[in-house]
Amino acid sequence: MSLSKLITHYQQRIEQQLEALLVNYASPAKTLQKAMRYAVLGGGKRIRPVLVYASTEACGGHIELADPAACAVELIHAYSLVHDDLPAMDDDDLRRGQPTCHKAFDEATAILTGDALQSLAFQAIIDTPNDTAKLSLSQQLAQLKVLTVAAGANGMVAGQALDLAAVGKQHVLLADLEQIHRHKTGALIRASVQLGAITANATAEQHQALTHFADCIGLAFQVKDDILDVEMDTSVLGKQQGADAAKDKPTYPALLGLEIARQKAQDLYHEAVSALSIFDDRAAPLRELASFIIERRH
Amino acid sequence: MSLSKLITHYQQRIEQQLEALLVNYASPAKTLQKAMRYAVLGGGKRIRPVLVYASTEACGGHIELADPAACAVELIHAYSLVHDDLPAMDDDDLRRGQPTCHKAFDEATAILTGDALQSLAFQAIIDTPNDTAKLSLSQQLAQLKVLTVAAGANGMVAGQALDLAAVGKQHVLLADLEQIHRHKTGALIRASVQLGAITANATAEQHQALTHFADCIGLAFQVKDDILDVEMDTSVLGKQQGADAAKDKPTYPALLGLEIARQKAQDLYHEAVSALSIFDDRAAPLRELASFIIERRH
Repeated sequence: MSLSKLITHYQQRIEQQLEALLVNYASPAKTLQKAMRYAVLGGGKRIRPVLVYASTEACGGHIELADPAACAVELIHAYSLVHDDLPAMDDDDLRRGQPTCHKAFDEATAILTGDALQSLAFQAIIDTPNDTAKLSLSQQLAQLKVLTVAAGANGMVAGQALDLAAVGKQHVLLADLEQIHRHKTGALIRASVQLGAITANATAEQHQALTHFADCIGLAFQVKDDILDVEMDTSVLGKQQGADAAKDKPTYPALLGLEIARQKAQDLYHEAVSALSIFDDRAAPLRELASFIIERRH
Repeated sequence: MSLSKLITHYQQRIEQQLEALLVNYASPAKTLQKAMRYAVLGGGKRIRPVLVYASTEACGGHIELADPAACAVELIHAYSLVHDDLPAMDDDDLRRGQPTCHKAFDEATAILTGDALQSLAFQAIIDTPNDTAKLSLSQQLAQLKVLTVAAGANGMVAGQALDLAAVGKQHVLLADLEQIHRHKTGALIRASVQLGAITANATAEQHQALTHFADCIGLAFQVKDDILDVEMDTSVLGKQQGADAAKDKPTYPALLGLEIARQKAQDLYHEAVSALSIFDDRAAPLRELASFIIERRH
């Protein structure tokens, strides 16, 4: 499926925001600065910032107030990819068809790039340009709280640690696999909609519905990723086909079989869309995003 | 010299604070949780938290309000040590006489431990316990701004990148070396006194004086470190003697000669103490800390 104008607009908006942020960001360490730009401006679907924008608008908030949080969540995501690709972690040479950061630069630079992007993510929420509309201090702190928790050892980093610990294990249960993904990718997707909800001063009901939606699409995204890894070849996916299986990583198709994994992705899609029933047409981009996640081919 | 009761009290206070924070901090990834404790609770002089406390009290602030920032700056420092010790970076096996994090655990765990500690640092400022006295929202945000900038690619991480780039270079100028240290260690020491100043709602004059003080002792600390590296043996220092020279790292004694490096450390000490002239006896711990940095033997 092709994405609607509104989602394309969100994607263009975040590209411009990230470029502006990184072009204005100078470091005395020039290679580091270059590597930070390489890691962030290398494309990608920008699903997390799109979720921030779409959740903000679904709750009736102003999109321009969502820019700092949209940048922040993508910077956290970009840092995690740089670190996850390192030789000591997933040891990947390609990312979106391009050399990974430690291949384009070197390992030390990649470690420092991830570290600096994490700091910059939180800075993006705090240090908004003077000429823009601003969130209140309590909204900024609420966003920082959501993002620091989602990024840390109770969120994304825990997921990567659990994932590495599961590689090569003989008996990984479905519950273990879900715990990995709830943390590794789920935490940041959940944070994305919550950042939007905070931006729009959403009601508790809206907040809860968005969180439920995010939990469903977060898991669906991962199930779909595992399915694509089995189905697609390198040229389309931009990474080695069957990379997960080659590394003896637990996956949904491996645990459930391909057909049941596909059914699970469908079920999660329907649950996600149901969670949005309290919203009007302003949630159309969120609904579209859910079907995009299920129907995407790479 | 031995440290006075007040500085020892600060050190004990930060140990208790860090222990409470990490004991209450559970992660689903148990090895990661263990490694985070290992990295933070492994001792050390806790100079940065001591500076936060001492600066708070020098400006007439309440020490209990400084606990979150004192923890935060030490968590950033601890994460940086874990990452700096990695094989791709300084490749150190020992830290304070104990195996470094990647030796005690493994490289992937060490990378993730550093990542998680960085998130936790900012969380410590945001998410203060309910039963404690609290800073205002604007104080919290001001502290987060200081710390994210000091930690990132315009602060500590830039310093490490510049340091790695300088290894093995034939001609490192004194100005280059100072730029490395102003970022690598200086940024976080400067942030420490500024965090204290924010805690105490310091005047602009106090803020400026503390920053000048911090810049002097930050540099003095590094000059002294380089001198100790030449002078001391492994048993006292807890790391390999002459480790810097062996790695062809630029140092003050190498650039200036040992005698002029010692004089420079003394000059910086006197400048640091002069910067404190606007403060009364409540700045005694800061003055003592400056002489400790110069006179320490390891």
